Amino acid sequence: MKHSTCRLTVRGYELDSFGHVNNAVYLQYAETALWNFMKIHQLMSVTDMLFPVVMESTQRYLHELKLFDEIRIESDFSSSGSVLVCEHKIYHDGTGILSCRIKGKVIFVSRDRIMHDVPEEIMKILEEGNS
Amino acid sequence: MKHSTCRLTVRGYELDSFGHVNNAVYLQYAETALWNFMKIHQLMSVTDMLFPVVMESTQRYLHELKLFDEIRIESDFSSSGSVLVCEHKIYHDGTGILSCRIKGKVIFVSRDRIMHDVPEEIMKILEEGNS
Amino acid sequence: MKHSTCRLTVRGYELDSFGHVNNAVYLQYAETALWNFMKIHQLMSVTDMLFPVVMESTQRYLHELKLFDEIRIESDFSSSGSVLVCEHKIYHDGTGILSCRIKGKVIFVSRDRIMHDVPEEIMKILEEGNS
Amino acid sequence: MKHSTCRLTVRGYELDSFGHVNNAVYLQYAETALWNFMKIHQLMSVTDMLFPVVMESTQRYLHELKLFDEIRIESDFSSSGSVLVCEHKIYHDGTGILSCRIKGKVIFVSRDRIMHDVPEEIMKILEEGNS
Repeated sequence: MKHSTCRLTVRGYELDSFGHVNNAVYLQYAETALWNFMKIHQLMSVTDMLFPVVMESTQRYLHELKLFDEIRIESDFSSSGSVLVCEHKIYHDGTGILSCRIKGKVIFVSRDRIMHDVPEEIMKILEEGNS
Repeated sequence: MKHSTCRLTVRGYELDSFGHVNNAVYLQYAETALWNFMKIHQLMSVTDMLFPVVMESTQRYLHELKLFDEIRIESDFSSSGSVLVCEHKIYHDGTGILSCRIKGKVIFVSRDRIMHDVPEEIMKILEEGNS
Repeated sequence: MKHSTCRLTVRGYELDSFGHVNNAVYLQYAETALWNFMKIHQLMSVTDMLFPVVMESTQRYLHELKLFDEIRIESDFSSSGSVLVCEHKIYHDGTGILSCRIKGKVIFVSRDRIMHDVPEEIMKILEEGNS
Repeated sequence: MKHSTCRLTVRGYELDSFGHVNNAVYLQYAETALWNFMKIHQLMSVTDMLFPVVMESTQRYLHELKLFDEIRIESDFSSSGSVLVCEHKIYHDGTGILSCRIKGKVIFVSRDRIMHDVPEEIMKILEEGNS
């Protein structure tokens, strides 16, 4: 398992007509956290061949987010078979309030739509653990 | 429980860099199916006072969607306590292949962020059932 | 010059916190009108090699659009040098009120980022005119 | 006239199927720059009564942006009659290359859709100039 942190600021166009961050946007935040993890660990070259595809995702929305809220995404990445399991907690950074929990299952697929194992480069990072 | 059907066509900007509909977009489709249900049953006036807010959602992505795919969303709406339960199946309309299953739990919240029961007008429609 | 018509319905998540369609969404509508033109005239195979890239765009927003509004996009496509000129008028279909005018200039670029002429297949359609 | 700077990082879901930032997303960046200006100068309370609405916008796209690009938006805000004129230059921050120029005209509208003058609080900031 490998932990990773990602920070974002809520942007105006992410709000819906109720004036808070729309539920679909949280999946975009989760995706950003995954790309961020890939970038930090120099794993972006993986995506030349394989693309991460979400197979399953569950979100629990606990507290709304608003314009300019600074958010902190704490993510744990692990593998289970050929699945990369992504567990995100999205916090309002100022107050520390938990806004959303997301559990996603991601597989790696080639351009010709063949499913592959979690790439070795990623497995190595996961096995390293959090030092 | 009340059933409802909604049809959409995949638009170019809904694709991500892998060339298929991005996982977050499916939540937008689910939201569209809910608004469509509200509209068909003349429930839009409810939203003058109360706003539907997603508390929880689980998606299982089974088959990718691509540009111009015609999709059919078959939705079952029911209530459980003060929660509106929305179960969507998103089909590729041409082939009949199931692309995604979504189960969402929606609550109704006033502008001052107080949670309310499922509005009576909606309960009436749910109790009507599918004739 | 070739004329083309495209119809869409405004979706809930396209509204911003002011309760009307966000200005950026109109460019997505324009993009949808272009893809629709490509599809109608069996030009999609062009995009295996070349991708339409917007170089310039001007929008005049005249009348707001709201949830469930049925819109009709009337588009004129023409060429000027190696540029595809796209002139869109977005109407509220029920009232016939003009909501937005968009003039876009699109070029065709290969995966290796080389700019090409407007593809012959498209030129043929433009020269056909409106019969 | 008042100058303002805003920094963003390109997020994965902002890319389209050509692998670069979609043209519509630049308007979201411009909107973010405007909200940022409002926030920096403590003008957010203005939006309790009046909402900034884009009347017109012209974009010239000069250089594509890709995943993780750090961007810097240099914006000049001025008034012309009852219009707030927003001139944005979007730079790739690492290389200093200009990616896009946007000129937007924004008006201020109340919830009942009446157009107002540029609010006094904003006029004061514009007249202050850049010290």
